[in-house]
Amino acid sequence: MPQPKSDVKKVVLAYSGGLDTSIILKWLQTTYGCEVVTFTADLGQGEELGPAREKALLLGIKPEHIFIEDLREEFVRDYVFPMFRANAQYEGLYLLGTSIARPLIAKKQIEIARKVGADAVAHGATGKGNDQVRFELSYYALEPDIKVIAPWREWDLASRTALIAFAEENQIPIAKDKRGEAPFSVDANLLHASSEGKVLEDPAVEVPDYVYSRTINPEDAPDKPSFIEIDFEKGDAVAVDGKLMSPATLLARLNSLGRDNGIGRLDLVENRFVGMKSRGMYETPGGTILYYAHRGIEQITLDRGAAHLKDELMPKYAELIYNGFWFSPEREMLQALIDRSQEFVTGRVRLKLYKGSASVVGRSSPYSLYDQDLVTFEEGAAAYDHRDAAGFIKLNALRLRTLAKRARKIASRG
Amino acid sequence: MPQPKSDVKKVVLAYSGGLDTSIILKWLQTTYGCEVVTFTADLGQGEELGPAREKALLLGIKPEHIFIEDLREEFVRDYVFPMFRANAQYEGLYLLGTSIARPLIAKKQIEIARKVGADAVAHGATGKGNDQVRFELSYYALEPDIKVIAPWREWDLASRTALIAFAEENQIPIAKDKRGEAPFSVDANLLHASSEGKVLEDPAVEVPDYVYSRTINPEDAPDKPSFIEIDFEKGDAVAVDGKLMSPATLLARLNSLGRDNGIGRLDLVENRFVGMKSRGMYETPGGTILYYAHRGIEQITLDRGAAHLKDELMPKYAELIYNGFWFSPEREMLQALIDRSQEFVTGRVRLKLYKGSASVVGRSSPYSLYDQDLVTFEEGAAAYDHRDAAGFIKLNALRLRTLAKRARKIASRG
Amino acid sequence: MPQPKSDVKKVVLAYSGGLDTSIILKWLQTTYGCEVVTFTADLGQGEELGPAREKALLLGIKPEHIFIEDLREEFVRDYVFPMFRANAQYEGLYLLGTSIARPLIAKKQIEIARKVGADAVAHGATGKGNDQVRFELSYYALEPDIKVIAPWREWDLASRTALIAFAEENQIPIAKDKRGEAPFSVDANLLHASSEGKVLEDPAVEVPDYVYSRTINPEDAPDKPSFIEIDFEKGDAVAVDGKLMSPATLLARLNSLGRDNGIGRLDLVENRFVGMKSRGMYETPGGTILYYAHRGIEQITLDRGAAHLKDELMPKYAELIYNGFWFSPEREMLQALIDRSQEFVTGRVRLKLYKGSASVVGRSSPYSLYDQDLVTFEEGAAAYDHRDAAGFIKLNALRLRTLAKRARKIASRG
Amino acid sequence: MPQPKSDVKKVVLAYSGGLDTSIILKWLQTTYGCEVVTFTADLGQGEELGPAREKALLLGIKPEHIFIEDLREEFVRDYVFPMFRANAQYEGLYLLGTSIARPLIAKKQIEIARKVGADAVAHGATGKGNDQVRFELSYYALEPDIKVIAPWREWDLASRTALIAFAEENQIPIAKDKRGEAPFSVDANLLHASSEGKVLEDPAVEVPDYVYSRTINPEDAPDKPSFIEIDFEKGDAVAVDGKLMSPATLLARLNSLGRDNGIGRLDLVENRFVGMKSRGMYETPGGTILYYAHRGIEQITLDRGAAHLKDELMPKYAELIYNGFWFSPEREMLQALIDRSQEFVTGRVRLKLYKGSASVVGRSSPYSLYDQDLVTFEEGAAAYDHRDAAGFIKLNALRLRTLAKRARKIASRG
Repeated sequence: MPQPKSDVKKVVLAYSGGLDTSIILKWLQTTYGCEVVTFTADLGQGEELGPAREKALLLGIKPEHIFIEDLREEFVRDYVFPMFRANAQYEGLYLLGTSIARPLIAKKQIEIARKVGADAVAHGATGKGNDQVRFELSYYALEPDIKVIAPWREWDLASRTALIAFAEENQIPIAKDKRGEAPFSVDANLLHASSEGKVLEDPAVEVPDYVYSRTINPEDAPDKPSFIEIDFEKGDAVAVDGKLMSPATLLARLNSLGRDNGIGRLDLVENRFVGMKSRGMYETPGGTILYYAHRGIEQITLDRGAAHLKDELMPKYAELIYNGFWFSPEREMLQALIDRSQEFVTGRVRLKLYKGSASVVGRSSPYSLYDQDLVTFEEGAAAYDHRDAAGFIKLNALRLRTLAKRARKIASRG
Repeated sequence: MPQPKSDVKKVVLAYSGGLDTSIILKWLQTTYGCEVVTFTADLGQGEELGPAREKALLLGIKPEHIFIEDLREEFVRDYVFPMFRANAQYEGLYLLGTSIARPLIAKKQIEIARKVGADAVAHGATGKGNDQVRFELSYYALEPDIKVIAPWREWDLASRTALIAFAEENQIPIAKDKRGEAPFSVDANLLHASSEGKVLEDPAVEVPDYVYSRTINPEDAPDKPSFIEIDFEKGDAVAVDGKLMSPATLLARLNSLGRDNGIGRLDLVENRFVGMKSRGMYETPGGTILYYAHRGIEQITLDRGAAHLKDELMPKYAELIYNGFWFSPEREMLQALIDRSQEFVTGRVRLKLYKGSASVVGRSSPYSLYDQDLVTFEEGAAAYDHRDAAGFIKLNALRLRTLAKRARKIASRG
Repeated sequence: MPQPKSDVKKVVLAYSGGLDTSIILKWLQTTYGCEVVTFTADLGQGEELGPAREKALLLGIKPEHIFIEDLREEFVRDYVFPMFRANAQYEGLYLLGTSIARPLIAKKQIEIARKVGADAVAHGATGKGNDQVRFELSYYALEPDIKVIAPWREWDLASRTALIAFAEENQIPIAKDKRGEAPFSVDANLLHASSEGKVLEDPAVEVPDYVYSRTINPEDAPDKPSFIEIDFEKGDAVAVDGKLMSPATLLARLNSLGRDNGIGRLDLVENRFVGMKSRGMYETPGGTILYYAHRGIEQITLDRGAAHLKDELMPKYAELIYNGFWFSPEREMLQALIDRSQEFVTGRVRLKLYKGSASVVGRSSPYSLYDQDLVTFEEGAAAYDHRDAAGFIKLNALRLRTLAKRARKIASRG
Repeated sequence: MPQPKSDVKKVVLAYSGGLDTSIILKWLQTTYGCEVVTFTADLGQGEELGPAREKALLLGIKPEHIFIEDLREEFVRDYVFPMFRANAQYEGLYLLGTSIARPLIAKKQIEIARKVGADAVAHGATGKGNDQVRFELSYYALEPDIKVIAPWREWDLASRTALIAFAEENQIPIAKDKRGEAPFSVDANLLHASSEGKVLEDPAVEVPDYVYSRTINPEDAPDKPSFIEIDFEKGDAVAVDGKLMSPATLLARLNSLGRDNGIGRLDLVENRFVGMKSRGMYETPGGTILYYAHRGIEQITLDRGAAHLKDELMPKYAELIYNGFWFSPEREMLQALIDRSQEFVTGRVRLKLYKGSASVVGRSSPYSLYDQDLVTFEEGAAAYDHRDAAGFIKLNALRLRTLAKRARKIASRG
């Protein structure tokens, strides 16, 4: 048995209570000979946190070193909602459900590390994925000299068999269904659930229905559409069907509506920051509804200049979050720009939910910029003079005409 | 009766054969005293062109001045497909079905003007919309000194009553159902149908089902999903379910599949180039399927750098087309960039069509960049070393750590 | 003599006191039969304002309708400095000296209009230039129903002769040197002077030295360089050579230094918003020094992510200002983003001024992100591990290697 | 003595003939026990290549394994000129002289590796810089399975003393002036020379004059300006003062003119791709002249839409080259866009060179888009109607007025 490494004294581990992070916990104790502090967060993943405490105690963690926190409101209010103000989609489709949760977990780990005087943090993300990057960039951005331990990159537990053996050697309880390989891996929080790996690895083969956990199959959804109304204030959703709700409550409500109507499934091959393509399945029921609803209210409350600028910058903003740069100056600058645009994004959107689709069917706002007088075919009171259009076109055309004259001159020269 | 204006000798009119453009035809004859040449294009709007010829003859147009052309293949091949290579969506949602048809019509009018020696062109677009801009920018870009007549901006036929009176005075046949106001206005071609005005003018009120003409209501669509396969070559769709088709035939086939499954309806409030917001309804059944399919094939064949660059530039590209700048250097430059990326966008996408949704469920390509060896959780042959990730993260974090150290220094100064 | 138009009661005119705006003043009185209120601003153009008051009185303006204001500090503090935070250059070279002054003048006119109950505003910009756009977009953005009078677009005084005749008819005093055509037109304020027209109209011919008014010819500048130091706080210059100064005083000081060293001359052919190219000469002595100094201090205080984002957005920001969209949501959003980046742009820059050049030769800051330990070739205490670079490169290369493998596979298929 | 590593058989080394790469050469032989192939390129760095051959022979390289090539024309034609079409500047100032040379050297190494059947390549770039990234990304992009050896990241020769000791042990000749530390490090090619390190490491301290090698001090330059003319064809310079020259000859000629007039010095703190800031000194005499000249000819030949699109994308393009992504799809896509714009960038630019400055003073082109008729204050034949400007402004203002009305409504609600 090797001598424990001595350069780490106390480490704050992002601990789910599951088998993998329990193995990591033990491995940290035996490999680094250091004190382990566990942090377990409720981000709405849908698991009880009680067992995580018990298991940590069982594995020898001191009670004062077990931290469990309900982060659902903070998660939605300070991470999910700001991101949705941007209409962020990675690679045109993905609503960033996993990406947006990592910075918050990392931030809490750093806060706990300061509180307990820990000199290191650890996470259970693998060495091929994006999450390691998101965790670690966040750690470093908040605490530049923190030591970071990423067991999956360090240990030699290269197979499921080796992991199980290590668990058995170290008296870590193993649930029966965890002995074999899982057919896919899962991440979940209040915004979404995602799955990847194993049965999903061939992008030509359809995702089996049993992989989905947050939505029913659209084919099993009700044959009649549901209609809902979402109220927005300054870019954030505040009420569903007229009922004011806290951010997390509201998102949970939309998740429930989305689930029942089979909304928010996505089968995607995406480009990871670490350089390869991967195939994943995402379910974002409430988020998908929210995305369309937010676009709907922006349509009548946001000026064209503001809307187009936001649209042009969105891909970069989404990429930053996907790549793990939430705590970066450039993300914060873009957020300042986006937030500046949301002052009057207030009003009500009506949506139709039906067998996999969420469609905006109506929107209204006390701050609407939509002016019926301006668009009507009827002659209205509005000060729109048709003749202005002639001048507008003429000057917009001027440079194109100059180009055309040049082309003609060149052609005539033969 | 005023003396006809004398500065126009011969004008090529974009003529649909309908009441409005027939009135324009007559108005041009009486107001400008000029020879009118009619151009009627089949862009897949779903109307027969025979009556247009008859009506033109009836209104006194010389046979040699009546031009009727089937542009469906050219439209899809040279306009729709290049645009779909860019995954273009205006304001995040609109697939630009009207915008993309205008440049082609304008180009043909200019070609005919050269052939018949006309010194002017005319169109039937109103003075409040985008189409006048799209037509006229295209005219000027192709023939810088052409005279442009936009009757809706010039005449004093300000009401439906005045139009009908003019038609009656001038012996223009009026179909019974055209006497009253239409409850909304329609534009249609092989890519889409759109409606706006009247019953659609209140953006809070749902679009009535009778407005839709290209899709059945999702609720009336089959209870079982349909699965289809689309083959791409260099970014363009070439086959459906293994059957090679010409561009227009293929789009028509997708339209039929989309119609039957209620796919491609969009209720939108958009920002017009001329400065106001308008509410429209769009149906793009085949285009919606094509959009998702193209994204699907790009997911495995396009490199991340290429894909992200395309995504960042897409809003600008879409805006250019929406605003009427198809024939502009900047659109052509962006097209060169986009086309450069499509060389290996070749392969097969499988989609599920179901009650309003088109979802990619599988994709494969001889040029796939997806490498199962790289992503698998299993240890594979692939040369991915987990330890590389550590260095990758460390250097990406370096500047963030430097920032954090500065923040700490500032905080400590208090 | 035509009956005066009756739809304007009181108009606030941007009045310089010169011949042209005096003619406009009279023309407004005779054509519109309305009360004229004059507004004369000191923006640092270098002319005394006393004569403007006298002349206005002479032309029949009531004393309470003559407004004269020294706007130099407001101009530099709220317009010039925010713009320089962005390192704004239009078309890569032009520091926007004329563009940035127009919104402020327009804003003051609107404020005066409200105070005196005027229903219209007027300016002396011509119908071919950008300034008309900048004035009028600003008017409308601040007071949407204001009437705007642009005499140069309305009257029939199409030649110099006609103007002079009108002046004589109306007893407007004409300075001797104003009888003939000026060989070029000039705009000036504390940031710059510009000239265009006549002798400058052939872009192949060098600008004659007599056109320059704010800088001496570099060839006449001192044979020894001058060294200066500029201090910045949060992105704005606050001191020169250690001496704290108000914004306008500071810019005037830099202008003086720039003038003496022949700095800031620019001969440019630019693209106007109204669609044609024009050739202009710009002198921005202090602004040019400020531009390089600001880049210099940003080099050590701004993070890469922030700096690159600013650089990517700068052309759009500059274009907005050039086109007259200072008072637009998108300019304000970009400003929020830019300002967010400037919190620590504080420190001292040393520059060498020499015969036309301003070169940064040193910079220091209490908030410097430059870390000598990180870059030194010596082995230092800094936590930079060379081996991290290997992993960094490997993962950045991963997608390129995947592409290369595909290319090889395709090639081998022949 | 350790057993040589056995996984490399033959390596192609980028070999300058200097002390450092000679040490690397020997180190490769002793550490890897592999055959070394040397590649020495003439990129215009200003050193003779003969001694490199002799030294390689002396160090035991087989004659058939010594490759020496004059790449000057290829370098300027295929790398420098395409980059200058984009007006590329990294971080607003740096003309990318070092960055642009690396991909070409890497490409040649790979070609030689294929020719001689080598399985590895090696370079002499350090572990803290950008060049290692540029070399290696290029290697991998061209030959995905190549082995890359970066001695500076691998060996334990951590100090100058250790290097010299290694050289002495291995009979590597050491020039007297190479025994001590150089006061700064240098990179040079036909486009530029750069220096960094040691005496340059404090960014507050002016670069000593003796560091410059490619330009005389502006203060020592002639007291009279020189005027030159550069001819462009499709965006590339083809002649100086009417004399047609090959790309490399032309750049050498501009370098000579730039040197004599003290043009192209730059003192910069920049952000490296690997994460830290560094301070460097750059001299780009001919490139600086070329940069301004190219902007000058674009001013009259490039349409506004094209020019602004190029300006917006330039920072990204420059960043890609700086970061080493020359051989990437996104750089190639941007190049396609840029090249598409250069078709008519043809004509003559006149510049004034004077004590550190290169200023455009005139430009002309058979394809000029500058139209004197359009801009003149005189009433010309040109079809510019002043009244068009009114409509143009009105419609551009429409959305701003709508916003202002909303603001007023909100204010009135109080």
